[in-house]
Amino acid sequence: KTCLLTKLGEDWLFLVLLGFTMALISWSMDYASAKSLQAYKWMYVELKGNVPLQYLAWVTYPIILIVFSSLFCHLVAPQAIGSGIPELKTILRGVVLKEYLTLKAFVAKVIGLTASLGSGMPLGKEGPFVHIASICAAVLSRVLSIFTGVYENPYGYTDILTVGCAVGVGCCFGTPLGGVLFSIEVTSTYFAVRNYWRGYFAATFSAFIFRVLSVWNKDSVTITALFRTNFRMEFPFDLQELPAFAVIGISCGFLGAFFVYLNRQVVLFMRRPTALTRFLTKHRLIYPAVVTLIIATFTFPPGFGQFMAGELMPRECINSLFDNFTWTKIWRSASPPGLGRSAMWLHPHVSVFIILLLFFIMKFWMSAVSTTMPIPSGAFMPVFILGAAFGRLVGEIMATLFPNGILFDGIVYRILPGGYAVIGAAAMTGAVTHTVSTAVICFELTGQISHILPMMVAVILANMVAQGLQPSLYDSIIQVKKLPYLPELGFGHISKYNIFVEDIMVRKVKFLSPQSTYRELDLLLQSTTLKTFPLVDSKESMILLGSIERCELQAACDWWLSAERRVYNQGQGISSPGSKVSWECFTFIDEEEQEENKEKVRPKWIHRGAAHSIVCSVATVYHCDITTDATFDWPLQIKAWEEAEMDKPIDIDHIRIDPSPFQLVERTSLHKTHTLFSLLGLSHAYVTSIGKLVGVVALKEVSPCLFLFSYFRKHGHLILMSFQSVMFL
Amino acid sequence: KTCLLTKLGEDWLFLVLLGFTMALISWSMDYASAKSLQAYKWMYVELKGNVPLQYLAWVTYPIILIVFSSLFCHLVAPQAIGSGIPELKTILRGVVLKEYLTLKAFVAKVIGLTASLGSGMPLGKEGPFVHIASICAAVLSRVLSIFTGVYENPYGYTDILTVGCAVGVGCCFGTPLGGVLFSIEVTSTYFAVRNYWRGYFAATFSAFIFRVLSVWNKDSVTITALFRTNFRMEFPFDLQELPAFAVIGISCGFLGAFFVYLNRQVVLFMRRPTALTRFLTKHRLIYPAVVTLIIATFTFPPGFGQFMAGELMPRECINSLFDNFTWTKIWRSASPPGLGRSAMWLHPHVSVFIILLLFFIMKFWMSAVSTTMPIPSGAFMPVFILGAAFGRLVGEIMATLFPNGILFDGIVYRILPGGYAVIGAAAMTGAVTHTVSTAVICFELTGQISHILPMMVAVILANMVAQGLQPSLYDSIIQVKKLPYLPELGFGHISKYNIFVEDIMVRKVKFLSPQSTYRELDLLLQSTTLKTFPLVDSKESMILLGSIERCELQAACDWWLSAERRVYNQGQGISSPGSKVSWECFTFIDEEEQEENKEKVRPKWIHRGAAHSIVCSVATVYHCDITTDATFDWPLQIKAWEEAEMDKPIDIDHIRIDPSPFQLVERTSLHKTHTLFSLLGLSHAYVTSIGKLVGVVALKEVSPCLFLFSYFRKHGHLILMSFQSVMFL
Repeated sequence: KTCLLTKLGEDWLFLVLLGFTMALISWSMDYASAKSLQAYKWMYVELKGNVPLQYLAWVTYPIILIVFSSLFCHLVAPQAIGSGIPELKTILRGVVLKEYLTLKAFVAKVIGLTASLGSGMPLGKEGPFVHIASICAAVLSRVLSIFTGVYENPYGYTDILTVGCAVGVGCCFGTPLGGVLFSIEVTSTYFAVRNYWRGYFAATFSAFIFRVLSVWNKDSVTITALFRTNFRMEFPFDLQELPAFAVIGISCGFLGAFFVYLNRQVVLFMRRPTALTRFLTKHRLIYPAVVTLIIATFTFPPGFGQFMAGELMPRECINSLFDNFTWTKIWRSASPPGLGRSAMWLHPHVSVFIILLLFFIMKFWMSAVSTTMPIPSGAFMPVFILGAAFGRLVGEIMATLFPNGILFDGIVYRILPGGYAVIGAAAMTGAVTHTVSTAVICFELTGQISHILPMMVAVILANMVAQGLQPSLYDSIIQVKKLPYLPELGFGHISKYNIFVEDIMVRKVKFLSPQSTYRELDLLLQSTTLKTFPLVDSKESMILLGSIERCELQAACDWWLSAERRVYNQGQGISSPGSKVSWECFTFIDEEEQEENKEKVRPKWIHRGAAHSIVCSVATVYHCDITTDATFDWPLQIKAWEEAEMDKPIDIDHIRIDPSPFQLVERTSLHKTHTLFSLLGLSHAYVTSIGKLVGVVALKEVSPCLFLFSYFRKHGHLILMSFQSVMFL
Repeated sequence: KTCLLTKLGEDWLFLVLLGFTMALISWSMDYASAKSLQAYKWMYVELKGNVPLQYLAWVTYPIILIVFSSLFCHLVAPQAIGSGIPELKTILRGVVLKEYLTLKAFVAKVIGLTASLGSGMPLGKEGPFVHIASICAAVLSRVLSIFTGVYENPYGYTDILTVGCAVGVGCCFGTPLGGVLFSIEVTSTYFAVRNYWRGYFAATFSAFIFRVLSVWNKDSVTITALFRTNFRMEFPFDLQELPAFAVIGISCGFLGAFFVYLNRQVVLFMRRPTALTRFLTKHRLIYPAVVTLIIATFTFPPGFGQFMAGELMPRECINSLFDNFTWTKIWRSASPPGLGRSAMWLHPHVSVFIILLLFFIMKFWMSAVSTTMPIPSGAFMPVFILGAAFGRLVGEIMATLFPNGILFDGIVYRILPGGYAVIGAAAMTGAVTHTVSTAVICFELTGQISHILPMMVAVILANMVAQGLQPSLYDSIIQVKKLPYLPELGFGHISKYNIFVEDIMVRKVKFLSPQSTYRELDLLLQSTTLKTFPLVDSKESMILLGSIERCELQAACDWWLSAERRVYNQGQGISSPGSKVSWECFTFIDEEEQEENKEKVRPKWIHRGAAHSIVCSVATVYHCDITTDATFDWPLQIKAWEEAEMDKPIDIDHIRIDPSPFQLVERTSLHKTHTLFSLLGLSHAYVTSIGKLVGVVALKEVSPCLFLFSYFRKHGHLILMSFQSVMFL
């Protein structure tokens, strides 16, 4: 009884601790970056009157912070650079990315992100926060497992990271529900419902603490939304306004796709080997410094900034874009009370439309470029602001077209441009990330759900357009970074049902059998770099018995010809017991690992490789020890002995075999194969027919530990996923 | 190009059509049941003054409707009885429930449910609506596939039903988001994210049409929430109120668990073979009639009903419980304007607390009992009302304890009992259904998200308590109905990591090999009722080649001894080509099915069984035709021939073999086995070790097509899931 309670308690403890830690980090980061922005503004205001000095301060402050952030990450942990969602998506797919979930990356990301956010550049917090929370979850589970060992299994690891992602998004803006949903949509293909429940719990707790902290700090009166809106509820919008909402949705779809395209082009340009990019790669800090300089110059309020509300910091932008006024109505008249920072949008000589349009266009390229800087940064918030500005623009146009509002039941209801801004923000972020849960995040951020149906319609339309044009921002980054990820089969790619494994498998599979000699084995190891080899009953029957990993074979081969075995063998005759004893002495090192390996299908290349290199190096040491003692007529004898030994059949009983490699049949559809590969995180599978090995399908191997799936166009009209088959020797 | 567009278009068309149809059905049903309730009330009001007649009308009207509903379902389709969610959950697990997704069940459910809802009994619409939408989705896809064949694959079938569930919940109350989430939580263990996106689209479209229909019908001014609340937004609640919200959550957890317990006890009582239940089973209509009579008598407004707001129909209850007044303050004073139906809660002589408490207690058992009647009915709405009443009770108590409200920043904020009611409703439904998305449904129903954090906390607390005490209502029904469902491994049952397949597998596996004779095969078929048999290479090697289904073996056996083959054989000598030809003539019938079978792991017993019984009956007909022509000395010869044939080895080349049955290894953990069984919908798996068959694990077989998983207690303290192993001959 106590045992069960302890175990249960540990899971709760883990979720609570995770939620609490992340809430604290999120709040502290917000606090620190807000203070930094305050200092920035204070400096700018104090220098009023001296424009050159003002400009210097306006430009230098963010440059220092961004360069610091870039340098810090470069020195401490380069893994902390960028968003983090693409990498998490890859890790959740089952690939091990080295050094990605370490405490070092955590520190670099937290410090770097705080500095980035404090610079006032168009950068977001959401993506990096997912990474931070995942590291936090991984570290926390490791700490907890010291006491108990609960979180040691591989399934648990996925569960932990999934919860981490949910908490990351959830406590970033205090949006638990949207956090859970967004993290599901962004990171998973198949989702275990039990994690939904755990994520929901942890994210709610985290968001709760996050909001309570700001109440205690007197930032807000009680627990409310971060960007609370105050739209009227009795008649939020009329059915006649729906076409405008649809237009926002469709336009945001196109704009979102263009944003992804632009972002990728910038990255690809920076990777092209030109003199400029070579120079920038050498002097890493110049690129972020120059980008920051250009962006800060454009937004300098007394300069061009006055035409694009350049003085507003990201969060002020959102608050003002969501406000309850109709700017075209109050423009050039006396400011109503409570206008606050929204006054920045009202230029005495330039129309509100021009300001909004300029803001949108300038921020568009600024956001696309600034998210490519080598610092921890997300694109969610910048895109959110872009969407809000676009929505506001449409809303203001509508308010001008229908200046008298809508007459209904004798009451005149004015159009709410703020509502359009909320819808635009949701649609744009939805288009860029290919998710629909941005609508939920919007509800939670604004604390109002009155626009639910038009918003959901707009988000869906934006998604339909954007999904047809471009991959999501995260998938785009995965492609550019060449991360090993199996993309989801597009919704509607029906052709996958008509393609079977037999159409794509490699038939010329090479294999091992108990009759294979060490010579054949050696040849096989030298001629390929593959990680796994199938073992069949015999060349004639071809019945698949299992698979053997490369390292295992290498170790067996090395041991067979090792000096230690030779000495032992020649001392004892050809009796095998001796061989067995020494074998055991070599393998005990990874006994524990063997235990682990039997339990899972997923290969864990890096870990296994490391264990085996220990075995090999031990063997080498022995070899040296003995050969130094040998007399000079030994070499010839050794050669002869080795030649003789090479022709013996391999000692299959002493090689560890994966007794159940994943099997498919020839008529398994591509669709099902894809599902199984995604679900079980496979890298390859053997195709068998009544026990006989007939082929193999595998993800294309691109580097020792990484795999890549490639898309190609077939028949000129269909984007098909192809299992790039690997030839096994 | 056109091909892709057509296919894509079809999926959209399917989603749009499904959404539109369901919105229309939902709206019409609401309209019809509202009219029916109007008539009921009109009758009651018209008879004012004549209490006996009034009572007669008050009692007769619902009895007629409920009896009609029960009779209609009994005659048209008994599958339409009950909620539908437990059955859908089972179907999505991969089990085929006969006659469950037919047009007949659809008609019975729609008509029956409308009548039930129109009776004013505490019955809900949500569960049956999931069933209706799933049938609609299944039928629609079948209709669309006539044109194209897109929706024919088994994966597509699951996809279709998942979307159906989402639409069902979504358009029931116009809550698309909550609908998608609730349907995921309730029906799935593993969820494909692509279905989230499709469900979201269809549910949004459906909810949109559903709300637009009521705008066109002038029920509402514009698209707003169904039970819209008008709580103040600037200060919805204070942090000091949180303990009260937590108390609501925890209490609702206990009450929800008790509700599930009570509901199950009523069903189990009705199933116990006593004289009373035998009588009720014989006269099916008496039970619903009596239950309705009792409930209607208690709620009769001039009688006991006056102490429990008996005059209020379910939807009126919700609207009044969510209102913005503090009843304890206005009790015994002049009614404020806009009080409306809420006046029913204010009895001139009895305190509001007593009324609320009586309402809660009476409705509690009424709801638990009325949902056991043999009519289409859900428990979601009744439980929602119970929760709202409980929350309101706590809210009113709080308002009495703190009559001056909360002082903050010089402004006095009064406590909002309506907010407590919303939180109570979400917590109670969450506890009964074991879901957290009821919070989302609540936001969408009320159109206000201001209480998001306390509500989520309350829902989580309610879930924690309820999940520890009882299964969810749907799982409880699954258990009572003995539906074949693989329950989710409890969250925190860590012991599953320490149990391996080798601990639970059956080692004494019996098998077939190519050397087996027909005599052995016949013995095997006669001595077991199992559905699948493993095929091994030979008795010595035991290498697993595949598995063969029972029907296949039966057919092979029958054909081997059939008169047709004998005649053919004796005419042609023992040449095998003849045998082959006729074999093909026998199997062509399910060639298409064979194609299908090769593509999937999941067995489809009923379908396959049916196909094979055709094969068998054809064989029988042939047999008769020929034996009637035979002369009288034939029988002895036939006997001798049959005996000789029986000792021949089975003709394995002409038997269809599943070439890749699912395999596990001895050290696969119970946790992983459970995951694989859930994910892939397996019913059994063979345990192999380097190709050798060493054991088998299977879900316990309870009836020809159904499997049941059983829980048992082990070591006195842990509830472990056991794979009840089946012995294969």
